[in-house]
Amino acid sequence: MPRIAIIGLGLIGGSLALALKRAQIEGLEIAGCDAQRGVAGRARKQGAIDHEARDAASAVAGAAVVVVATPISQARSVLEAIAPALEEGAIVTDTASTKRDLLRWAAELLPERVSFVGGHPMAGKEQSGLEAADAALFEGMPWAITPSVGATEGAIRTVEGLVSITGARPIIVDAAEHDSYVAAVSHLPLVASTALFSLASQSQAWPDLAILAGPGFRDVTRLASTDPSLSHDICLTNRENLLHWLDRYMEELRRLRGLIADAGQQEKLLKEFVRAQTEREVFLTKPPERAPEDQRAETPSAREQMLSFMVGDYVVRRTKEIDRMLDERERGLREERGR
Amino acid sequence: MPRIAIIGLGLIGGSLALALKRAQIEGLEIAGCDAQRGVAGRARKQGAIDHEARDAASAVAGAAVVVVATPISQARSVLEAIAPALEEGAIVTDTASTKRDLLRWAAELLPERVSFVGGHPMAGKEQSGLEAADAALFEGMPWAITPSVGATEGAIRTVEGLVSITGARPIIVDAAEHDSYVAAVSHLPLVASTALFSLASQSQAWPDLAILAGPGFRDVTRLASTDPSLSHDICLTNRENLLHWLDRYMEELRRLRGLIADAGQQEKLLKEFVRAQTEREVFLTKPPERAPEDQRAETPSAREQMLSFMVGDYVVRRTKEIDRMLDERERGLREERGR
Repeated sequence: MPRIAIIGLGLIGGSLALALKRAQIEGLEIAGCDAQRGVAGRARKQGAIDHEARDAASAVAGAAVVVVATPISQARSVLEAIAPALEEGAIVTDTASTKRDLLRWAAELLPERVSFVGGHPMAGKEQSGLEAADAALFEGMPWAITPSVGATEGAIRTVEGLVSITGARPIIVDAAEHDSYVAAVSHLPLVASTALFSLASQSQAWPDLAILAGPGFRDVTRLASTDPSLSHDICLTNRENLLHWLDRYMEELRRLRGLIADAGQQEKLLKEFVRAQTEREVFLTKPPERAPEDQRAETPSAREQMLSFMVGDYVVRRTKEIDRMLDERERGLREERGR
Repeated sequence: MPRIAIIGLGLIGGSLALALKRAQIEGLEIAGCDAQRGVAGRARKQGAIDHEARDAASAVAGAAVVVVATPISQARSVLEAIAPALEEGAIVTDTASTKRDLLRWAAELLPERVSFVGGHPMAGKEQSGLEAADAALFEGMPWAITPSVGATEGAIRTVEGLVSITGARPIIVDAAEHDSYVAAVSHLPLVASTALFSLASQSQAWPDLAILAGPGFRDVTRLASTDPSLSHDICLTNRENLLHWLDRYMEELRRLRGLIADAGQQEKLLKEFVRAQTEREVFLTKPPERAPEDQRAETPSAREQMLSFMVGDYVVRRTKEIDRMLDERERGLREERGR
C-alpha cells in the first residue's frame, strides 16, 4: 500500500493533500504532521490526511514519497530529523520557493539510499495556512522540478506523476537556473508589488487613495499579502538573483520615465504600450511550451516580425489622433496659465 | 420618458448600458452611438441600448443625461459636437481616467444651460471593446465624481444615482485631487505593471521565464494588458502627477533594495513585509470609508498602534529562526566555495 508523508500542512502542504485525496488513488495513504499544534488533527478530521504523525521522523516511517512542505527556514532541520527514519529507496521532494539551498542541504544530510528531487509549485493566494488549502490550487499552474545529481530516473518520474495528479504542469529545470528564472517572474513581482502597496499605504493621502483604489490596484498589489516570513525567506535565499532583477527593473522604470517625460518621444512610448499588450496577449492565449534547444533561436524572430507588423499598423493609425490631442492640451494649459 | 445617451460603446460604455438595462428602470430609454462602424448596431441587437444613433449629436437629442464614454483623446471633439444639440438642463458626464482636462474642456465648450459632472469608474479588465462589456463590471468598485463649478446640486445627485444603479460606490472628489490620487493607485500601478511585463518579455530568457510564470506574475502584470491608447492617454493627460509618483516608487524600490542587500538589516526588512501584509489585510477586510475632516487626524495613530503591536510580536517570534537560517546559509555557501 503506497504511503506519502507530507511534512507541513499549511496552504501548500494542505492543498497537495486535498488534491491527492480528490484523485481517489486506490490504496493511497497520506501521513502528515505540522509544527503548529492542532493543525495535523484538523487536517485528519477534514479528510486531507489519513494519519496524524507526532513529528516529521514518525511521519516518514513506511513512506515511499516524502514531501517537505514547510517554510524553507525549517526545511534544513526537517531533512536532518527525517534522514535516519527514511525507508530504503524513498523519494524526498519539497515545495520551497528557491532550490539551490535545498539541493545543498539534501546532499549534505540525506543518506545515499534515498533520492532527492526538489519541487516548487508556482501557486498561491492571499490567505495562508490549512484553512486556505484548496484541492484546485495547482490546476494549470507550473510546478518546477529540480532533481539532485544522484536522483534516480524512477524518482524523477514519480515526482512528475505526483505533480500531474494535482493538475499542475511539471517542468524539469536545473536548480541554479530555476532560482534565476523565478527571481524574474516571482520574486521581483513580489518586491515590486509590496513596494507599490507600501508606498501608497504609507502615504499621508492613504485614506483618500484607499477609497479610490480599484481592481487594478488590488491585482497589482496582491503579492503584498504574501505570508511575510515567506517573502523574507525568498529575499534571504535568493538574494543575488533578486538584486540583479531589481536593478534591471529600476532601469526599465527609468527608461519609461524618460519616455513619459519627453513630449518628443510619444510615438516611442505608445509603441511600448502596444508591444507589452500584444506580447501579453500572446503569453495568455498561446501558453509557452518548451521548444527543443535547436528551435529556440528561430522563435523570437518570427514573433518579432508579427509584433513589429501589428505595432506599426496601430501606431500609424494613432499618431494623428495623438498629435491633435497634444496640441489641444498644450493650448489649454497655456490658456489656464494665462488666466 | 427619461432618455440617457451613451457616446462610445466600448468596455465602459457597453457595460454601463448593460448595467442600466439589468436594473429594469420603468420607461428608461438608452440611445447610443460609437465611432466604430457596426458597434452601435451590435449593442442594440444584444439589448444593451434601445436606439442606435448615427452620431453623437443625434444621440443626445432629447436626452436628460449624456455619458461621454469615448477615449479621452476623442472626448474634446465629442463635447464640441454635442454642445449645440444638448437639451435645456441636460446633465453631461464622462468616464475618462483623468478629470482636469475634461472639466476645462466642458467649461470651454458646453453651453450654460447644461450641467457637467465628471465621472471615472475605477474598473476594467484584460479585454476591451463591446464584446468584453459586462453588466457586473462596476459592482462594488469606486466611481469618482468630479462636479464642475457650475453643476447644479440636482445634477450631482443624478450622476450619483446613475453610478449607484451600476452597483459602484460614488465618491465625490475635486478634479485636481482626483488626478493626483489616481496617479498613485491607478496610473503608477499601470506603469509598474507594464514595466514588469516588458522587462521579463524582452529578456533573452523569456521562453524559459514564461514557462515558470505563475498566477502571481499574471496578477501583477495584468495592467500591461490595458488598451495601449488608454495607457498612453493617461501618460499624456496626467503626466506631472504620474512622474511624481513614479519617482517616489523608484525611491521606495531603492530603499527596499538597500534592506535586501544588507545582511544587517534583516529585521527591518521582515518588518516591511509584515507591515505591508497587515495593512493590506486591513485594506481588504475593512474597506476604507471617508472620515469627516475632524476625525481624520486620529485614524492613523490608532491604526499605527495596532500595527506596531502586531508587527512587534511577530518579529520577536521570527528573529531566532532567521538568525539560525542565516548562520546555516553562510556556512553552506562557505563550504560550497571551499570545494
